[in-house]
Amino acid sequence: MTKERLYLFDTTLRDGAQTTGVEFSLEDKIAISRMLEAIGIDYVEGGYPGANVVDTEFFSEKRTKAARFVAFGMTKRAGRSVDNDPGIADLVNSRADAICYVSKAWDHQVKLALGISTKENLKSLAESVAAAIAGGKEALVDCEHFFDGYKANRTYALECVKTARDAGARWVVLCDTNGGTMPSEVEEIVADVLTVAPGDRLGIHAHDDTGQAVANSLAAVRAGVRQIQGTLNGLGERCGNANLVTLIPTLVLKPVFAERFETGVGPEQLETLTHVSRAFDEMLNRAPNRQAPYVGASAFATKAGIHASAIAKDPSTYEHVLPEVVGNERAIMVSQQAGKSNLLSSLKRFGIELAKDDPRLDKMLRQVKEREARGYSYDGAEASFYLMAHKLLGTLPKFFEVTGYRAAIERRHNAKGELVTICEAVVKIDVDGEVLMSVAEGNGPINALDLAMRKDLGKYSDRIDDLELVDFKVRILDGGTGAVTRVLIESRDSTGERWFTVGVSPNIVDASFEALYESFTYKLMKTATSS
Amino acid sequence: MTKERLYLFDTTLRDGAQTTGVEFSLEDKIAISRMLEAIGIDYVEGGYPGANVVDTEFFSEKRTKAARFVAFGMTKRAGRSVDNDPGIADLVNSRADAICYVSKAWDHQVKLALGISTKENLKSLAESVAAAIAGGKEALVDCEHFFDGYKANRTYALECVKTARDAGARWVVLCDTNGGTMPSEVEEIVADVLTVAPGDRLGIHAHDDTGQAVANSLAAVRAGVRQIQGTLNGLGERCGNANLVTLIPTLVLKPVFAERFETGVGPEQLETLTHVSRAFDEMLNRAPNRQAPYVGASAFATKAGIHASAIAKDPSTYEHVLPEVVGNERAIMVSQQAGKSNLLSSLKRFGIELAKDDPRLDKMLRQVKEREARGYSYDGAEASFYLMAHKLLGTLPKFFEVTGYRAAIERRHNAKGELVTICEAVVKIDVDGEVLMSVAEGNGPINALDLAMRKDLGKYSDRIDDLELVDFKVRILDGGTGAVTRVLIESRDSTGERWFTVGVSPNIVDASFEALYESFTYKLMKTATSS
Repeated sequence: MTKERLYLFDTTLRDGAQTTGVEFSLEDKIAISRMLEAIGIDYVEGGYPGANVVDTEFFSEKRTKAARFVAFGMTKRAGRSVDNDPGIADLVNSRADAICYVSKAWDHQVKLALGISTKENLKSLAESVAAAIAGGKEALVDCEHFFDGYKANRTYALECVKTARDAGARWVVLCDTNGGTMPSEVEEIVADVLTVAPGDRLGIHAHDDTGQAVANSLAAVRAGVRQIQGTLNGLGERCGNANLVTLIPTLVLKPVFAERFETGVGPEQLETLTHVSRAFDEMLNRAPNRQAPYVGASAFATKAGIHASAIAKDPSTYEHVLPEVVGNERAIMVSQQAGKSNLLSSLKRFGIELAKDDPRLDKMLRQVKEREARGYSYDGAEASFYLMAHKLLGTLPKFFEVTGYRAAIERRHNAKGELVTICEAVVKIDVDGEVLMSVAEGNGPINALDLAMRKDLGKYSDRIDDLELVDFKVRILDGGTGAVTRVLIESRDSTGERWFTVGVSPNIVDASFEALYESFTYKLMKTATSS
Repeated sequence: MTKERLYLFDTTLRDGAQTTGVEFSLEDKIAISRMLEAIGIDYVEGGYPGANVVDTEFFSEKRTKAARFVAFGMTKRAGRSVDNDPGIADLVNSRADAICYVSKAWDHQVKLALGISTKENLKSLAESVAAAIAGGKEALVDCEHFFDGYKANRTYALECVKTARDAGARWVVLCDTNGGTMPSEVEEIVADVLTVAPGDRLGIHAHDDTGQAVANSLAAVRAGVRQIQGTLNGLGERCGNANLVTLIPTLVLKPVFAERFETGVGPEQLETLTHVSRAFDEMLNRAPNRQAPYVGASAFATKAGIHASAIAKDPSTYEHVLPEVVGNERAIMVSQQAGKSNLLSSLKRFGIELAKDDPRLDKMLRQVKEREARGYSYDGAEASFYLMAHKLLGTLPKFFEVTGYRAAIERRHNAKGELVTICEAVVKIDVDGEVLMSVAEGNGPINALDLAMRKDLGKYSDRIDDLELVDFKVRILDGGTGAVTRVLIESRDSTGERWFTVGVSPNIVDASFEALYESFTYKLMKTATSS
């Protein structure tokens, strides 16, 4: 049986750019469109030529090879001919392969927001589509507010779809602009739209305002839609657009869809998905969502010991797909609830293979339990676990030792009578018998200690140049008098790798320093093996 | 028309505790069950009595008033009588109102993971349910792997449901344990289950592995399920459980559901949802998800200028529900009204009544926004908000002033050659012109500062005797070049009241000190009004 083709349309560079705090440079846009093409996206919507300098520049060249390169814009203004509309000219003269027009499909919004008649709106739509086709472009129409519009005035909403189709639009995309439509409603409404617009010419554009953008997109496909619009990692205005990184594996792997449909994404491309998703977050300088479906660091993580031993027998016990098909990996967390099988698979992930009956395994398990009882948590600090394992196996080199440190924080009135805080740290480091002493000022004691340590690590100095502290988290355990502080430090380097180290002490500065020291050691260990 | 009742079952304290990096203390569990009751949850699953010290202690008292308090556990072990099973005894003897048993419904898993016959499994199930009922508890059964089990062996999966029902379970909960089932499959399978188990006795337990836990839960409700299991903010193993914070407003506000069903959540409770969601994240010491449906800081944010002006004309342009009904606010400055009404209701909670047109309200709103832009967060620090309001209204007495402090941490070898860390703090305090200077040693700089401050507060000394620091949380906020630290301190006193104060600074000690100072001030304010 031949499968029906589903088309994937990415709007990360257009609707995704509406995300609070996100702004793309020209270089970002170029890099992201390459990523999108590489995973097999069919349409890459690049932005809005004419709206700003970056977008105009981006559309001055064709930026994709295999994928269709799409420019987004408004239909022609009412009361002006299509040949005389600079907005349309920007779109038609751009180097895009296709133009996606946004056109309101809710009569109330046409009158309220545009202040024109519903008839004028249809006329603008038809003429704009015709202009795109005359200019040699493929035409697409995003019917804005389609579902709310349909509920308010079914006739007008359907008329918008017909007008776009009749004018020659390849795709008419039904947009749930406000994101409040339920999957059951999407399914019913799409079925009705198909009665006036049969065939493979409908698309869906969903937003996540009720946490159902993915479900709405899939409901639309079941009902007959053949193009899905979405973004990388669900970027987008408000709660975001449909997440293509979640949708793609579902379409490719889940029998309900995979048996009927095919997409432009092959198995090798699917295997890069985890990497693409995380690399994109790196580009946005934000921590990847650990709980993200398919690609999150926790998506195939198991904490409970009974689950871990069941997974060892058969992955289908707690995994709905195999992690490697999306380029992710199984993460059996080392924790109080864990047993030997968790430990073995964690070690394996770091390239340490031990036999099941290796006596060092028992010793390690005892040590993990003993340290966790004291407040350590390896579940979130795998780099520290890695160092502990190497230490126990005798394979951790002694890079450097900190023989002492001092940190002082002082808040006082300065000469101008202002209250200021000053922070200074001194560290004494022993590298192969050579004692190095450094001092630095910082924003706070940990920052000052970090800066002092970096000042002189002797022969290791240049190996920590690109080491960067990204985040640190502090938790007080047990409360009360015997309180202990646990500090988790997140670090990264220029390779894009992120790692977590942990420190525990009644003293927050001590705990931070331990995690800091382990982060430095991990970085040195890492560069030792790679060189 | 009378509406059908939907029951909300929260498993944050049980399945939510499987989240990577999350661990609940007894105090956390008590605080969270209060939050859950306050928003109108029907069932609060508290954990697994007998499995660990915290859970056993938690179940030594009844922890809920209105909600049913549920203990989770396994059915009796095969080859042992129900009266002779310590696991069952722990459940029955706990102070829970109800017991939720997990029981495998996939024959393959019964044989593989349990290593017993499918018949033995049913026998354990029936006898365990009977034991719960005999012990005076309501019985619930989580059918683990139900949907995968149904696909593999429909007869056995349905037999599990029937066995649980016939044994007297009030609820039989269909679990999508691996989270890979599609909403359309859920709908079909639930409809089939209803043919053997009619009525209002089915529940749904969905996981988010394809990003559809919410959609799967709603599909199940449409098909006939009347209990929904989920967690606060979608906590849970791997990608998390169904997010109750997303589900609740959809059930209450969306006509498709609201016209047919009612829940235990009233309009006033719905208005607290944003606050509850963010306060819970604060408790977990993690940044709230800005894009979270309904409650995220960006959920009603608009970036595009054209959208903002359309919203000013009519909110339905880009909002599917009004933000205030879930206690959130529109994040565009076109409407100060939304912000003001939030502020008014927060002030009211602290007994401060202001008129809607009081000019001080505008000033306060500006100050909140300005301070939040600098990193403060009043969602989790209501005591600081209370102090700020009183300061602005001129009703905050000047108790004492800290004119300077110094803290020093030193790690060095002692006389015995051991590495030790010593921490000392000095504070200078002005009480009504009298300058007091104290010094103390502590476990860490904040502890030392706390101890030094307590040593001599002049005439206020005895009013802070029972003040105790319970917890403190530190978060690094990404401020580009200048990262800023936010510290949240939780305090309590002998009345049992707990309060949270916040401090923000590039220096962690400074930020901590600010929160500490505010905690002391709040305590003095509190005793001033109560005496």
